[in-house]
Amino acid sequence: MKLVLEPHTCLAPLPAVIVTCGDEKENNAITLAWVGTVNSAPPILSIAVRYSRHSLGLIARTKEFTVNLIDRSLLHAMDVCGVTSGRDVDKFAAAGITRAKGERVGCPYVAESPVAIECKVVERVDFPTHAVFFGEIVGVVADAEYTHGGKVVLPDGFLVTYANGKYLATGDTIGTYGYTAKEGK
Amino acid sequence: MKLVLEPHTCLAPLPAVIVTCGDEKENNAITLAWVGTVNSAPPILSIAVRYSRHSLGLIARTKEFTVNLIDRSLLHAMDVCGVTSGRDVDKFAAAGITRAKGERVGCPYVAESPVAIECKVVERVDFPTHAVFFGEIVGVVADAEYTHGGKVVLPDGFLVTYANGKYLATGDTIGTYGYTAKEGK
Repeated sequence: MKLVLEPHTCLAPLPAVIVTCGDEKENNAITLAWVGTVNSAPPILSIAVRYSRHSLGLIARTKEFTVNLIDRSLLHAMDVCGVTSGRDVDKFAAAGITRAKGERVGCPYVAESPVAIECKVVERVDFPTHAVFFGEIVGVVADAEYTHGGKVVLPDGFLVTYANGKYLATGDTIGTYGYTAKEGK
Repeated sequence: MKLVLEPHTCLAPLPAVIVTCGDEKENNAITLAWVGTVNSAPPILSIAVRYSRHSLGLIARTKEFTVNLIDRSLLHAMDVCGVTSGRDVDKFAAAGITRAKGERVGCPYVAESPVAIECKVVERVDFPTHAVFFGEIVGVVADAEYTHGGKVVLPDGFLVTYANGKYLATGDTIGTYGYTAKEGK
């Protein structure tokens, strides 16, 4: 039986990442699930940041941010970054993660993250509760073991995803893009 | 050891959905992973559509689309919708899925999808290879068994996610948002 529900945010599953921002003097780390890829050439991604967030001013000022992918070993740190404010605490210290100096941006990345995607803001769109920053990817800092031929390649069961207030494990590969075409469908 | 890779799209894991669009006379179903939530009140999501896609014109004309969530039973259908074009075939027939009449939009949704998120376009941003449509969620059509208190609630291991050309299963809940605060961290 189908029910028609009133509008609410229910797209799932979403990426669960830590976004780092700021500069050497003032920086922060926030947990976001409202991120997405939007363009292939050049590669551009989007992040949606609530206006009340401390990081919003940092990103607006520096026009840079880094998206740090999260594996299961970083789940605890990611949740800490999601429920504390950089106005009150040093979130890197609170979460037990390490600032690494950005390679192609001025903001730090999370040294423990397997993949840090460095971005420069190319456009901003303001909605009632959240600002969307579009970031052109200018470099990707990755652990060598998670790369192949200059691209990021991650093992099955490695990343964390987010759905309806829950962090979920990701599991096995159950298909590859285009597999039905090879079946002759 | 860290490597600095050249820019490429590597955000993961992403949602894997079928977006339906068009009207009663002409409609289509496309597979997208470049979708995301961007605003909470009102609820707004974004979809990025390559300019060459047949669906782009339909969405631009009708200013409506529906995001259909995908469980494992719909994996095969989703892949079919990703590798065929609505210019050439009736993708609903090719994928073995059923058009259902939209509740609050004029475009159809996928009857077999557990959750269909109906949207009206409120803004569009054009990037070099993809157009981003922002859709305000105007209604959510869900199987009753996947709702609780008027909201969508999905079981563990139910949805499909996308990373680096692979469809991945989602697994168990490994934490809930804010769980570290309850530990007294």
